[in-house]
Amino acid sequence: MYTTHGYAAKDAASPLAPFDIQRRDLREHDVQIEVLFCGVCHSDLHQARDEWRNTIYPVVPGHEIVGRVTKVGPSVSHYKSGDLVGVGCLVDSCRTCASCDEGLEQYCENGFVGTYNGTDRESGETTYGGYSTSVVVDEAFVLSVPDNLDPAGAAPLLCAGITTYSPLRQWGAGPGKKVGIVGLGGLGHMGVKLARAMGAHVVLFTTSPSKVEDAKRLGAHEVVISKDEAQMQAHLNSFDFILNTVAAQHDLNPFIALLKRDATMTLVGAPEHDHPSPQVFNLIFKRRRLAGSLIGGIAETQEMLDFCGQHGITSDIEIIPMQSVNQAFERMLKSDVKYRFVIDLDSLRK
Amino acid sequence: MYTTHGYAAKDAASPLAPFDIQRRDLREHDVQIEVLFCGVCHSDLHQARDEWRNTIYPVVPGHEIVGRVTKVGPSVSHYKSGDLVGVGCLVDSCRTCASCDEGLEQYCENGFVGTYNGTDRESGETTYGGYSTSVVVDEAFVLSVPDNLDPAGAAPLLCAGITTYSPLRQWGAGPGKKVGIVGLGGLGHMGVKLARAMGAHVVLFTTSPSKVEDAKRLGAHEVVISKDEAQMQAHLNSFDFILNTVAAQHDLNPFIALLKRDATMTLVGAPEHDHPSPQVFNLIFKRRRLAGSLIGGIAETQEMLDFCGQHGITSDIEIIPMQSVNQAFERMLKSDVKYRFVIDLDSLRK
Repeated sequence: MYTTHGYAAKDAASPLAPFDIQRRDLREHDVQIEVLFCGVCHSDLHQARDEWRNTIYPVVPGHEIVGRVTKVGPSVSHYKSGDLVGVGCLVDSCRTCASCDEGLEQYCENGFVGTYNGTDRESGETTYGGYSTSVVVDEAFVLSVPDNLDPAGAAPLLCAGITTYSPLRQWGAGPGKKVGIVGLGGLGHMGVKLARAMGAHVVLFTTSPSKVEDAKRLGAHEVVISKDEAQMQAHLNSFDFILNTVAAQHDLNPFIALLKRDATMTLVGAPEHDHPSPQVFNLIFKRRRLAGSLIGGIAETQEMLDFCGQHGITSDIEIIPMQSVNQAFERMLKSDVKYRFVIDLDSLRK
Repeated sequence: MYTTHGYAAKDAASPLAPFDIQRRDLREHDVQIEVLFCGVCHSDLHQARDEWRNTIYPVVPGHEIVGRVTKVGPSVSHYKSGDLVGVGCLVDSCRTCASCDEGLEQYCENGFVGTYNGTDRESGETTYGGYSTSVVVDEAFVLSVPDNLDPAGAAPLLCAGITTYSPLRQWGAGPGKKVGIVGLGGLGHMGVKLARAMGAHVVLFTTSPSKVEDAKRLGAHEVVISKDEAQMQAHLNSFDFILNTVAAQHDLNPFIALLKRDATMTLVGAPEHDHPSPQVFNLIFKRRRLAGSLIGGIAETQEMLDFCGQHGITSDIEIIPMQSVNQAFERMLKSDVKYRFVIDLDSLRK
């Protein structure tokens, strides 16, 4: 066991505060990673404040981790000291169910082990995330980060990146396809960049006219103000796929109506209160589909990182020291971030 | 032009009553059909009472038509006098859009022409349906009915049959697949028969314990009382596909939770009031899908009729004279029918 420094919430009402973590001694397949950067995901805030009512305290959030390998267990074959690596939302799964067999560990039938607030399958201990200077993770759940990417900007790829990449790939975003991205936040801005790099015609939907220029800078071919009925009408029945990244409760019908026959809108944001019910006629009359998607599997996450390496894609970020994470949470609630806070863990090593 | 006898509603509040129809002289590709039987679909009632607020009065319902060809236009090549034929929900479409090109005339981008309450593309006149002794339909929208099928029992195949057959085929119902059918009415009982004939393991969901035995007789391998949480729990994450035929507003979540990862529930019933909103988590955590489906195209309808011919499948029906249609509507509202009323049009010829 060794001690590493982190930040934890000790209950739902307290701000995050310094917390020393005992990390395990390396098992056969473990990789010890010095955390360089960790993205701040909205899930971190939900979990710290027990908004999903399943938080085990103290909780050390953080599942958008980029770091350097500092040590490896005796049977580790894929990584060596000094490698630039990433860890996303998962650090283990049953590895035997049908979903794990298909490389879809995020849908593990026996429940995946979350990077934080999870339960280690061997020790039974609660997992602590990347708001800390060092983590220990089984190599099967460690990703290789392309060296040409900025490590800080790459951190959000581990959650925001794969969450948008996976459904875009699943539903065929690419040349000749018209793809909508709803919402320009941490997820949405990655969706725009990735869909553009995949070769799709990208339309960004936002309620904020102030975001139009930025959306175009990020890669959107068109930007639609979703409150403007005339703008929406012009796109009726025209989308091959819509990726809806908005986690706030909103009416899905105006977006469903923009799908072509047999096209799908995938939700990746989980609202605290359910969206109003979609109109059945809207689904029936064009055989449209409403779907969900959860992050991505390990193999697909590696594929996404490689894709980002090839296309030079990282997240637009604002780097903060660990000590500012509580203010970052407050600003995130006001959408006052372009587009992801990333914690520089050197701030805990000084 | 020639006169044929029918039944029409003259406004939303009046019962159906005798009404003489002027049918057009045969065009090049027209087929004149003596209507033998016409199924009574819930849509007929909705349309007669203007519950969709688009009814053109007088309205002659009926789109589950089986009859004999009595005359054909000079260029008709597929049918001859004496043939047993069917007409379903569509009598025309633009025939040039992408959907029509793919044989999906029900999703015609320019709007299909309904068998009743539609607008003829040539004359601009309102179409009148199968609650009448004779119809005239372009041969491209006439189906061949296998001679081994009971003509009365075959009539509901033209709407209830194809509405369930199409999504079952689309989503791969067959050997090795576990398929759920929600609701045991006109649509649901066809879904059970068809899914069973396709080789799937069929589970029927009903709120009525009184329907258990009948569902098994119709072909269900298992019957689940959907209000019984323990019974529902036993089927969590186990279905490859669920066909939801219930048109009344109900909670979709308990059924969505029964889908495997990547599986779909398709809605074919359009409720007057939208269902409560599905929980997004339920979609996201298994990448499940909620979809819709509308009847089927002409080619697929023929495929379905041929399939029913091969498997000896017809609807379970109660034959009524035209004069009893208003009572049939009332009984249908109470679900007091097993499982479809079919009008014997001889009752108007006597």
